[in-house]
Amino acid sequence: MTERRGPWTYHGRVPLCVTPCLTAYRDEVTLPHGERGTYDWVLAPDQVRVAALVDEALLVVEQYHYLAGPMWQLPGGSVDPADRGSRTAAQRELAEETGYRDGRWDDRGSLHALPGLTPARVYLWSTIGPTPSRAAPEPAEADLLVRHIPLSEVVLAVLDGRMRCAASAALVMMLALERSP
Amino acid sequence: MTERRGPWTYHGRVPLCVTPCLTAYRDEVTLPHGERGTYDWVLAPDQVRVAALVDEALLVVEQYHYLAGPMWQLPGGSVDPADRGSRTAAQRELAEETGYRDGRWDDRGSLHALPGLTPARVYLWSTIGPTPSRAAPEPAEADLLVRHIPLSEVVLAVLDGRMRCAASAALVMMLALERSP
Repeated sequence: MTERRGPWTYHGRVPLCVTPCLTAYRDEVTLPHGERGTYDWVLAPDQVRVAALVDEALLVVEQYHYLAGPMWQLPGGSVDPADRGSRTAAQRELAEETGYRDGRWDDRGSLHALPGLTPARVYLWSTIGPTPSRAAPEPAEADLLVRHIPLSEVVLAVLDGRMRCAASAALVMMLALERSP
Repeated sequence: MTERRGPWTYHGRVPLCVTPCLTAYRDEVTLPHGERGTYDWVLAPDQVRVAALVDEALLVVEQYHYLAGPMWQLPGGSVDPADRGSRTAAQRELAEETGYRDGRWDDRGSLHALPGLTPARVYLWSTIGPTPSRAAPEPAEADLLVRHIPLSEVVLAVLDGRMRCAASAALVMMLALERSP
């Protein structure tokens, strides 16, 4: 089952470990310079992040991450198998975490967070003027706080390290640049 | 060896798989809402990305990623155990991939790429006015191309999906916003 992938060739694969959250694989490959070798990588769910603008303020979630400590992020999470694509996932995560729904949604593309480690993408969405209803965070998110923070302040939070999530930072900066004079 | 981590409690750990590139672990935890459970995660090397500005053009590397396909990125890579911190890693990766050295270096903070999956950080650096010498890319980067691209065009590349690396995108947008009128 040899398969060309740009200058790489894939020859086969063994799973190294399989859990409900992630799978690690070792692929047999030929590297771009022609030598045989292996490539270890992780299959993990795609993610979504949402810039939700309510009266020029962004909805920001504040949460203690088990691996990364306290952090501001844009609302978001994993794309579930039950989601019909990243837009549905973005709308579901925004509603679960913040209670906000609807508004004018725009596709902001997708990013690779760690392209050497995992093919997982982070899909970016924005919504202007969503309306509040009741939030329903997951049990593991019991400490999640939702804030309304002016876009200009969120930009400062990216620069001073309060918002250290790469995809959130990229999306905030995109929005800020688009709105700069 | 119980240890508090914000609203989480760590109780112990087993390695699920260990390779030279990554280690997957399962931690025994108490979740923020008080229930016992497990948390699977991946230990992988920290990364660096460098915005290197030469005459208002950024050095951009173009490469086929085995997991993610063809992609533009800012120069960068893994922080090696031999590097004395992320600045040394950033200077080494810039020199290896592009041949450029020196210039006026600035610390641009760090980002978490996938904070739910891995504690790995991407450290961001910029250098203004580095000078060319000879590049020495790794064998696995035999297809790496280096381009000089005006900052305004790199911003467009972030928006149209040519530059899909999250940390590169965030750093480019930071620089562009800083330089916008």
